Amino acid sequence: MTGLSDQSIDRPSRPADVAASAGHVVTFPDSQPLKLDCGASITPVTIAYQTYGQMNADKSNIILICHALTGDQYAASTHPVTGKPGWWHYLVGPGKPIDTDRFFLICTNVLGGCMGTTGPADLNPATGKPYGLSFPVITIGDMVRAQAMLLDHLGIDDLFCVIGGSMGGMQVLQWAVAYPERVFSAVPIATAAKHSAQNIAFHEVGRQAIMADPDWHGGDYYPHHKSPRKGLAVARMAAHITYLSEAALHRKFGRNLQDRDAITYGFDADFQIESYLRHQGFTFVDRFDANSYLYITRAMDYFDLAADYGGILGSAFQHSATRFCGVSFTSDWLFPTSENRTIVHALNSVAANVSFVEIETDKGHDAFLLDEPEFHSVLKGFLDGAAIHRGLARKG
Amino acid sequence: MTGLSDQSIDRPSRPADVAASAGHVVTFPDSQPLKLDCGASITPVTIAYQTYGQMNADKSNIILICHALTGDQYAASTHPVTGKPGWWHYLVGPGKPIDTDRFFLICTNVLGGCMGTTGPADLNPATGKPYGLSFPVITIGDMVRAQAMLLDHLGIDDLFCVIGGSMGGMQVLQWAVAYPERVFSAVPIATAAKHSAQNIAFHEVGRQAIMADPDWHGGDYYPHHKSPRKGLAVARMAAHITYLSEAALHRKFGRNLQDRDAITYGFDADFQIESYLRHQGFTFVDRFDANSYLYITRAMDYFDLAADYGGILGSAFQHSATRFCGVSFTSDWLFPTSENRTIVHALNSVAANVSFVEIETDKGHDAFLLDEPEFHSVLKGFLDGAAIHRGLARKG
Repeated sequence: MTGLSDQSIDRPSRPADVAASAGHVVTFPDSQPLKLDCGASITPVTIAYQTYGQMNADKSNIILICHALTGDQYAASTHPVTGKPGWWHYLVGPGKPIDTDRFFLICTNVLGGCMGTTGPADLNPATGKPYGLSFPVITIGDMVRAQAMLLDHLGIDDLFCVIGGSMGGMQVLQWAVAYPERVFSAVPIATAAKHSAQNIAFHEVGRQAIMADPDWHGGDYYPHHKSPRKGLAVARMAAHITYLSEAALHRKFGRNLQDRDAITYGFDADFQIESYLRHQGFTFVDRFDANSYLYITRAMDYFDLAADYGGILGSAFQHSATRFCGVSFTSDWLFPTSENRTIVHALNSVAANVSFVEIETDKGHDAFLLDEPEFHSVLKGFLDGAAIHRGLARKG
Repeated sequence: MTGLSDQSIDRPSRPADVAASAGHVVTFPDSQPLKLDCGASITPVTIAYQTYGQMNADKSNIILICHALTGDQYAASTHPVTGKPGWWHYLVGPGKPIDTDRFFLICTNVLGGCMGTTGPADLNPATGKPYGLSFPVITIGDMVRAQAMLLDHLGIDDLFCVIGGSMGGMQVLQWAVAYPERVFSAVPIATAAKHSAQNIAFHEVGRQAIMADPDWHGGDYYPHHKSPRKGLAVARMAAHITYLSEAALHRKFGRNLQDRDAITYGFDADFQIESYLRHQGFTFVDRFDANSYLYITRAMDYFDLAADYGGILGSAFQHSATRFCGVSFTSDWLFPTSENRTIVHALNSVAANVSFVEIETDKGHDAFLLDEPEFHSVLKGFLDGAAIHRGLARKG
């Protein structure tokens, strides 16, 4: 097989039994619509989330974990579709840097997602059919507003920390700007205050790959019991390259051949890197909705935190009392250190409380998800220090 | 319109009238098959080429220009399909660095191409139908062997210079290794002696985008009078990002909006970078055959000059008398300076005659095609110097 077709046909259009395994779910009634930046509102809104650890008596140990583009609420628990460990299992758990013995963690599936929170695959109450492209275009601000709505519902006034990488880091920054009084500390990791031209370009390629797939049906693929699996797989393959570094690809794969001694003079996956990428594409489509991919990439494209502040990023953080810790990775070319440093410089320009660490690694953007001891010790150190400032008792 | 569809339907599967406008064309009879690295042979073989300038009496002023992945023989003359100037018009012409008043230039469409030289869109004499995927998988070595066949036919024993960028640079290196006695000087620009894992990865994404398009028909789209235009456009869009630099994208586009004052909360091309990329995709499919894209990218993936020399690149150039001038560009991340330097180090390791220049520019890989005065003066200087060594009289 040279193409993606064998593994791409006649599959369900959504991950199976998502609703049944989405963990905690809250559906807000029509009396509590979610107002969006575009001017529209969504109702009813469902938010799916997971929690880890125990809330303390004065609710001072709560951390909100924000996930990235293709993440979900399963930061530290088994994924119900893939059966794999949570996407942040290296970092989150008993005794780990984000210590569930000490902190109460909340992780929501983002608005527009496909793991239980309202998104384009859900029924549009106005039509009784799945939203598809009638779902309103959402922003990072809308995602954060939905999370705040959930916290209100749970009776949580403020957060000890908001933490996340990549698009999760965008949410962290948005939280600190939109609700400064609710955010004691914030850890934006491998992120940016606005999406760059190159990153918009990669997203656009992914969206065009999805839209070029005839099984996309203009976004209305749900009734066809098909989905643009090939297009979504191509989008994922292209994106996946940007998550790694040239050095990591060279170290892991180089020009190694896949289960063969010599090139075959054909279009099979002769090279390990080809086989790896195809696998990334194949497996992704089993757990992700193509329209969610369109909407969430668009939310990232639109993110420009300084836009409402005359282009002066520092102004967004004026009078902020939040303690910030920025983290970047040397080989990350999707959200390079320069973008992360721009955030730190803006915070410094208003004398905010900010530290910043650049981690030396060849693992690229994905480093924030991987076993990176220096990164983990930075996080643990910051959370320990912030906990002292918060007056949280030491563990044990 | 959010997708590529409007401009992607019911177009001819090949550029119109290519055969009629391919410039010079030589078709070799069945008695002269082209033997390929894969073991197969192609016959008949047609090679389309353009020439510029005049050959001198002792045939000592001949330069072979080798084109890149999506280039063609129209280095310095109007493209018959697009009507645009030749792809190297900044460099090639009267009084220009590659001076047509002084040198006789030959530029062939590569084997596997779609501008007149035999490729997968041509008739397979064994079936009477277009080759499609029955076209044998070719290599950079095969492309160069076809060019040598043409030179033999034209009575040209040796070349004053072989020059090219990107895949053109691969051909330059292959020429110097396969036919050292025929190459007086060689200018490999923005290239590599082997294709990297990351570059194979980007090619694989492009190929999968093409193969995912149902109009590809397993490569047999020609009789359907369709072609995988959407898939090819997506492939081109992804590739195009790699030709630029993050800095150039930021400088040219940033987050500028396209003909609008505010974001539209939709999937239109709100951003200039989106509009630009879509345009790149649309226009490319009018002039390029999708199967050619598959075959030529594969040839690049397979390129590994040291493979036949026990992995020791220097050994490939042992006893070479060719004068080399390598050129790289600081912001080129597709063929970074490190890859070009690897070639220079290998040449140095066998005491070959080699100079090397890294050009400071933010234009990325595309810099080799653009108005880069420092690059042009380097080329002019090297060609002038090599001409003196060759005993070519100064111009004028």
